[in-house]
Amino acid sequence: MQLLRLGDPGAERPYARSADGVLHDLSPLTADIDGAFLAADGLARARAAIDAGELPSAGEAGLRVGPPIARPGKVVCVGLNYRRHAEETGAPIPSEPVLFMKAPDVVVGPEDPILIPRGSTATDWEVELGVVIGRTARYLDSPEDALAHVAGYAISHDVTERAYQFERGGTWDKGKSCENFNPLGPWLVPADELADPQDLALSLSVNGVVRQRSTTKDMIFTVAEVVHYISQFMVLRPGDLINTGTPEGVAMGQPEPKPYLRAGDVVELEIAGLGRQRQTLEPA
Amino acid sequence: MQLLRLGDPGAERPYARSADGVLHDLSPLTADIDGAFLAADGLARARAAIDAGELPSAGEAGLRVGPPIARPGKVVCVGLNYRRHAEETGAPIPSEPVLFMKAPDVVVGPEDPILIPRGSTATDWEVELGVVIGRTARYLDSPEDALAHVAGYAISHDVTERAYQFERGGTWDKGKSCENFNPLGPWLVPADELADPQDLALSLSVNGVVRQRSTTKDMIFTVAEVVHYISQFMVLRPGDLINTGTPEGVAMGQPEPKPYLRAGDVVELEIAGLGRQRQTLEPA
Repeated sequence: MQLLRLGDPGAERPYARSADGVLHDLSPLTADIDGAFLAADGLARARAAIDAGELPSAGEAGLRVGPPIARPGKVVCVGLNYRRHAEETGAPIPSEPVLFMKAPDVVVGPEDPILIPRGSTATDWEVELGVVIGRTARYLDSPEDALAHVAGYAISHDVTERAYQFERGGTWDKGKSCENFNPLGPWLVPADELADPQDLALSLSVNGVVRQRSTTKDMIFTVAEVVHYISQFMVLRPGDLINTGTPEGVAMGQPEPKPYLRAGDVVELEIAGLGRQRQTLEPA
Repeated sequence: MQLLRLGDPGAERPYARSADGVLHDLSPLTADIDGAFLAADGLARARAAIDAGELPSAGEAGLRVGPPIARPGKVVCVGLNYRRHAEETGAPIPSEPVLFMKAPDVVVGPEDPILIPRGSTATDWEVELGVVIGRTARYLDSPEDALAHVAGYAISHDVTERAYQFERGGTWDKGKSCENFNPLGPWLVPADELADPQDLALSLSVNGVVRQRSTTKDMIFTVAEVVHYISQFMVLRPGDLINTGTPEGVAMGQPEPKPYLRAGDVVELEIAGLGRQRQTLEPA
């Protein structure tokens, strides 16, 4: 099953696509795919309603694909969480997860344009496995408890302005929360339908040239370790999003002149089982 | 006029106190004091409705004071924004604002307990002027345009775990988003009723001992400069909160042994015209 939100920005409606490819209107069950729905076992209820034939089938022709969850309460990101990406940035392998935040309102749909900030010189790409929280996680006892708090997974694009991240003083956050800097989707796969989050191929290309190609096996800290770890510092709530880090191959890691994104560029992202994203770069 | 939200956590209702001290129930006008209300000139409409005698008076006996705005879309913070605070931390005076984020769900009421994170050794205080956005601010042309985008002001307590902030790798965010780490309120004062945001006395005491006593005159970057600056990096939306930095006197700046907060401590904060906060420290 795939959970989707279709419609104009801010007016998306909830849908589910069953294994037979049929799209179902979820609105008899919920007004939105949000934290409250996820916390109330919404994904299992959606599956049961589809199986019982209770949800009408729907067409999606012409509808924009929104992010598969409503605006998250927070977006927590893990930095330098793939061995070969840490190496390409010249950073040491972290001894514990590196965390930073993105503003929740930069989460957009998987085909919405990426806006190059005014004055940007170094807008960069980062394909990531996005983890959506389904149950409140607070001081979890161990990583073994963590995955039961995950609702599902989606492709997350952690777009980053490197000059803002590193050269404007202070923390990384300045380069992480520019407008439209977190395409998410196209769909959410329930956690119990994904065999192993640590065995997913992920890739990203720019204008048809493959730039990132790796697997979540290369993660330094697994999804379970990351969720457990974050829960020691903050409360993770249903509907929150975690971006689990990007593999090697970002523009920053390339030889000069680094191929940072420019208006007109097309970025395509893929994670096995989670679909594809495609964004065009536009000036803000 | 003071805008308040009273009631149990998550079930607060909106109120306004007029200059004559009478509390008015705002619920005929709006379900909540949130971004949509602020963007729709809600504060001016509340004032007009009170003046026209359209809002019933109300009692507040026994009601908990919540944060004066609904959960913000984002909380953007300025670090090292008072000259003498930058000096006490040993940091150079920033040449441009230092930014970081807090998770929006750590905003709580002004008398809610501060929870000391499990394992914390260095929970610290920071009285700050909180700025609530009223109109979308995106690439503002100049600081002169900025204050027209501010809805109002409130006391904001940017509670911080210093060891998590500085000693656990990565950015400051780990020490900024622990549960209940942002008491806000007790009330919001409309921007047009505050004579000068750069001429406010602010103070904080712990167990009756004054620890911070300064004025917003000591800010390195004014509120107008901060709002203008942030708008170059991200879109500020109605209901967003900006914490504008803290003056000198935090525990981190004291001689050893540094007087970090412990369970049972009582912290009181005051900003001229914005009321008082009082929190008790409790273990998480």
